[in-house]
Amino acid sequence: MSEFNNVTVVREANIYFDGKVTSRKVVFEDGSYKTLGIMMPGDYEFGTEAAEIMEFMAGEVEVLLPGEIEWKTIKAGDSFEVPANSKFGIKVKEVSDYCCTYITE
Amino acid sequence: MSEFNNVTVVREANIYFDGKVTSRKVVFEDGSYKTLGIMMPGDYEFGTEAAEIMEFMAGEVEVLLPGEIEWKTIKAGDSFEVPANSKFGIKVKEVSDYCCTYITE
Repeated sequence: MSEFNNVTVVREANIYFDGKVTSRKVVFEDGSYKTLGIMMPGDYEFGTEAAEIMEFMAGEVEVLLPGEIEWKTIKAGDSFEVPANSKFGIKVKEVSDYCCTYITE
Repeated sequence: MSEFNNVTVVREANIYFDGKVTSRKVVFEDGSYKTLGIMMPGDYEFGTEAAEIMEFMAGEVEVLLPGEIEWKTIKAGDSFEVPANSKFGIKVKEVSDYCCTYITE
């Protein structure tokens, strides 16, 4: 278990794909932010604005990153990075708990 | 939208009912805490230790509170209180976003 201290949390969730993907925004003292989210099993396509690092605390997914042709398995403890302004595919195999860090220049 | 400031958030989610109910713990400066959660459609029974106030930011559920015989409809903006050490039933009709406040003496 780990925790984020001295943060602001938005009370209302972000709800996508009929609730199969949900996230909550956590804002840090320096103005940067992360989202903590849950993905239920299913196939999803996401788009980025800022570059993102996605870390998985629980679950299992396969990810197809931009420019790749092979799906890669990601389990609890794994992470991957997605470039800004791109699209990527995720197949959620098991309920997944993730932390997304947005990298702004 | 509202937010909680100067809080600690546990990074890992609490995952119940195969991920159909998930929540995240938010700890306040005075040591009190709340959980922010998502419930997918389904029927659930929950037990309390501390008394709880459950507020709904989105969605729709029916709740059967301890000692009641009629299910009550709860929508976004509504809340209900559950006594300590009790059980209650929830039928989630639409994906629901909730905030649970634990009342410790």
